[in-house]
Amino acid sequence: MSKQNRDKIKVFALGGVGEIGKNMYVVDTGEEIFVMDSGLMFPQEEMLGIDIVIPDVTYLKENLERVTGIFLTHAHEDHIGGLPYVLRQVPVPVYGTRLTLGLVEAKLKEAGLLRSTELNLIETNQKLSFNSAKVSFFHVNHSIPDAVGIAIHTSQGIIANTGDFKIDHTPIDGQHTEFGKISALAEEGVLCLLSDSTNAERPGSTGPEAQVGQEILDVFQAAKGRIIIASFASNVHRVQQVMNAAAKTNRKVAVNGRSMVKVVDIASQLGYLTIEKDLLVTIDQANDYSDEKVVILTTGSQGESMAALSRMAQKSHKQIALRPSDTVVIAATPIPGNETSVAKMVDKLMRTGADVIFGQKKVHVSGHGSAEELKFMLSMMKPKYFMPVHGEYKMQKAHQKLAIEVGVEKDNIFIVDKGEVVEFANGFAQKTGKVPSGNVLVDGLGVGDIGNIVLRDRKLLSQDGILVVVVTISKDSHKLISGPEIISRGFVYVRESEALLQEANTKVRDVLEKCMNENMKEWSSLKSNVRDTLSQYLFEKTKRRPMIMPIIMEI
Amino acid sequence: MSKQNRDKIKVFALGGVGEIGKNMYVVDTGEEIFVMDSGLMFPQEEMLGIDIVIPDVTYLKENLERVTGIFLTHAHEDHIGGLPYVLRQVPVPVYGTRLTLGLVEAKLKEAGLLRSTELNLIETNQKLSFNSAKVSFFHVNHSIPDAVGIAIHTSQGIIANTGDFKIDHTPIDGQHTEFGKISALAEEGVLCLLSDSTNAERPGSTGPEAQVGQEILDVFQAAKGRIIIASFASNVHRVQQVMNAAAKTNRKVAVNGRSMVKVVDIASQLGYLTIEKDLLVTIDQANDYSDEKVVILTTGSQGESMAALSRMAQKSHKQIALRPSDTVVIAATPIPGNETSVAKMVDKLMRTGADVIFGQKKVHVSGHGSAEELKFMLSMMKPKYFMPVHGEYKMQKAHQKLAIEVGVEKDNIFIVDKGEVVEFANGFAQKTGKVPSGNVLVDGLGVGDIGNIVLRDRKLLSQDGILVVVVTISKDSHKLISGPEIISRGFVYVRESEALLQEANTKVRDVLEKCMNENMKEWSSLKSNVRDTLSQYLFEKTKRRPMIMPIIMEI
Repeated sequence: MSKQNRDKIKVFALGGVGEIGKNMYVVDTGEEIFVMDSGLMFPQEEMLGIDIVIPDVTYLKENLERVTGIFLTHAHEDHIGGLPYVLRQVPVPVYGTRLTLGLVEAKLKEAGLLRSTELNLIETNQKLSFNSAKVSFFHVNHSIPDAVGIAIHTSQGIIANTGDFKIDHTPIDGQHTEFGKISALAEEGVLCLLSDSTNAERPGSTGPEAQVGQEILDVFQAAKGRIIIASFASNVHRVQQVMNAAAKTNRKVAVNGRSMVKVVDIASQLGYLTIEKDLLVTIDQANDYSDEKVVILTTGSQGESMAALSRMAQKSHKQIALRPSDTVVIAATPIPGNETSVAKMVDKLMRTGADVIFGQKKVHVSGHGSAEELKFMLSMMKPKYFMPVHGEYKMQKAHQKLAIEVGVEKDNIFIVDKGEVVEFANGFAQKTGKVPSGNVLVDGLGVGDIGNIVLRDRKLLSQDGILVVVVTISKDSHKLISGPEIISRGFVYVRESEALLQEANTKVRDVLEKCMNENMKEWSSLKSNVRDTLSQYLFEKTKRRPMIMPIIMEI
Repeated sequence: MSKQNRDKIKVFALGGVGEIGKNMYVVDTGEEIFVMDSGLMFPQEEMLGIDIVIPDVTYLKENLERVTGIFLTHAHEDHIGGLPYVLRQVPVPVYGTRLTLGLVEAKLKEAGLLRSTELNLIETNQKLSFNSAKVSFFHVNHSIPDAVGIAIHTSQGIIANTGDFKIDHTPIDGQHTEFGKISALAEEGVLCLLSDSTNAERPGSTGPEAQVGQEILDVFQAAKGRIIIASFASNVHRVQQVMNAAAKTNRKVAVNGRSMVKVVDIASQLGYLTIEKDLLVTIDQANDYSDEKVVILTTGSQGESMAALSRMAQKSHKQIALRPSDTVVIAATPIPGNETSVAKMVDKLMRTGADVIFGQKKVHVSGHGSAEELKFMLSMMKPKYFMPVHGEYKMQKAHQKLAIEVGVEKDNIFIVDKGEVVEFANGFAQKTGKVPSGNVLVDGLGVGDIGNIVLRDRKLLSQDGILVVVVTISKDSHKLISGPEIISRGFVYVRESEALLQEANTKVRDVLEKCMNENMKEWSSLKSNVRDTLSQYLFEKTKRRPMIMPIIMEI
């Protein structure tokens, strides 16, 4: 690798820009490639039947031998959830802090990738040396412990990535955002800063996690019966505060929901969660205590239909039936897109007669810094160039505005879309092109095999259903032998539409006979004649457009 | 009809409670039935392919000869949108104020129901006399002109319905909520009040529409290029304020979008909208003016994919291409459920480079009163009984709390679900049962023919698609003659899954031969054998569960 090449440094995002989710940022020094995070995104409404979405990692696959590793900022799904899929295509070492690796380990174990993956523990004071750059870390505050920002020290200066952060002066775990290290980075010279844009549109400061603890304690003290409290499992600080409030009010805690059980288990094993002796009980044991002695800590704050809280709301939870004396606390806000399902769940929860606390009290605070915190980070880092990342376009734009306010040159701010490359040479930057990028859809075991055609068909099928028309035709005599048989799904309720389907049958028979009398030999023409006739007839009668699938069996 | 029967008055909601939408409230005096409003609801996420939802009006159909008419409070879709469907089943007179009837006329004309429907203009000072009750009206403020509340003067007292309302002391049209009339109703004696719960969870007051006018004017004065402003078409007050701001800033207004054109047309013809001479231009004419002289008033504030603003965002609008110098104003908030589509549209609008004003400025205010206004209404009406309506369960509950605060007895408050009957006898009320009620789904020309089975099939089809398996079998020899032919849609991308489908074909052939060797004669057993084998094989290979439809052609 020539010196010249090494002096061209490419920075781009494979995910996380122009969207919320599947964060993946890449620094390519020419000699080596450093990947930061490997997240997933939950499917959008139009991605019917899709389980999750990950970034297109073609660039990494094609340059596999130059990839030094995937450096993780923290253990949220939008930063680590893509690992099981990405590592199968890009088997490289993974770097993370202790809690991050703890949660990644569980994930890779489930995926059968634990043995084949090299996991490297980050000690945040160490500086990792590679050929073309050094990598160092700094602690930041976020809604999960052990979150870090990453600094890649290149020949042209530092490329720094804040990861998800806010500035919390009273952190639950006593671990502050490391201003000293950030100042030292600024001193060394930050060529380019990538920073979290999630709350760039929000004025002011986000507020400390500790304020939530006081609110939770107030609710616990006021509640006369059981308390059911839902939170993100990964928010270990929140979980800690629930444990503290329970201990203070002499309540036992039963942990409910698969991911909550997992996180409480791993976090307490690794020392990130301190739980008083005898505080935890099982759900069954909880039933032996009187109501005012019980807290049930559960998953399902997003109204996910299969999660524990939703099942309680629907009265289908096997162990927990809500009572009017219960207090249900949702200590989270809906992620954009989940508003409707959360609202529906709240409605059902209220109908049980329980007191539902959601929205009114301050039982949740964001993990992402607002405008003042983002400006503070920019002021501390003093970057020459700036890339607002981790957010939709409008958030990136709002972040750009904040950066200009604190003195970053407008021309030095790059709002990039997925795959857009910003190239640095001799300390100067410009956009130079694109690398392959996009949404890779995961459906069951299929990664990337679902494309627009399949999605378009699912959309059509979901709107007006399908009508299958089968006929058997003699190869020799070219006569109709059997059928037409018409079967539909998702179109009309068959029993009430016998006349319609009968008439459709006659229409198909007529058009087939006409075609065959005209000696039409190509099945494709025959099929499109059937499709057109039927489509027109059904639209006229029902104003619906089911998918029509003619099948000709030749014997 | 005996006196005794007449003295049992039933009040119930066929829609509008436990939900937002399809408002329809019924007062049955025993002798006569008074229906208030006939709204529609937009389909919820799980109602795949459904166009709109209306209430079940079985009760009205079965008691058709006793229905005096449908009395409309105002011309919003959730109050009048069901009329074309309901009037076909329940052909009764319709009563409404002038603007309401103007908009209803256009709707009935489109539906071919104008000639067959008796439309009666309400003069708000008149009192209509029926056999068992009188009906009077009072003006209220709302986000459409000519909105009224309804009072049904029965033998036991008044049943009053506020309709949608807020209290605006500086209304755009000078038409205040008629406190005098409301006080007079209280004096006469309000037996039961039905009141709008939409904003019951919001503290304080909603604020006047006029404040929006000032914000709009500020934006118009600051904008350097064209202004594109989106609003609900029916919010004639808002439209008026846009016209005013345009006139003041020497801009011409081009009206865009079908419903906006229709409302501007009807409202100005009826005198509800005052437009300066020469203010309006066509879109084509607008192109002849310099950018700073142009306002485009458009539909699409909810991100509806086919509406004008969305088409501009997607660059598919035939006449309007956005420019970086444009200012786009969305003078509305997303209706619950539309948050995601609005956010996506805003993102696309911003990417055009235009300045997008949404959320930050106060260019929208709700048409529904908040807590203080709701308490004010309760205090003025002094009802003996109270039914919070027009809202989800949590809003009804919040409204109940407000009513208790202002002194309504808790036992005298009825939170009803659809169809639940509150019966009044000798001035006392109790819940006495249910009338038929529910969601009637409209899909194309079908009203109510889509049930759970069709929706379940659409859901299944939308998740993993469908696989059709066709075989031809000889009736006599009981042998496979042709096939199996396997065709799929929405399952896998066929070209990349040849091996999978080939193997599936072999599996089907094997199971069929096995069945026929065992002399299995029933097609249904044969089919379920094929379905089970295939389902298991495909799930194993893909972790997907397409719908499998085996078809046996017998010759």
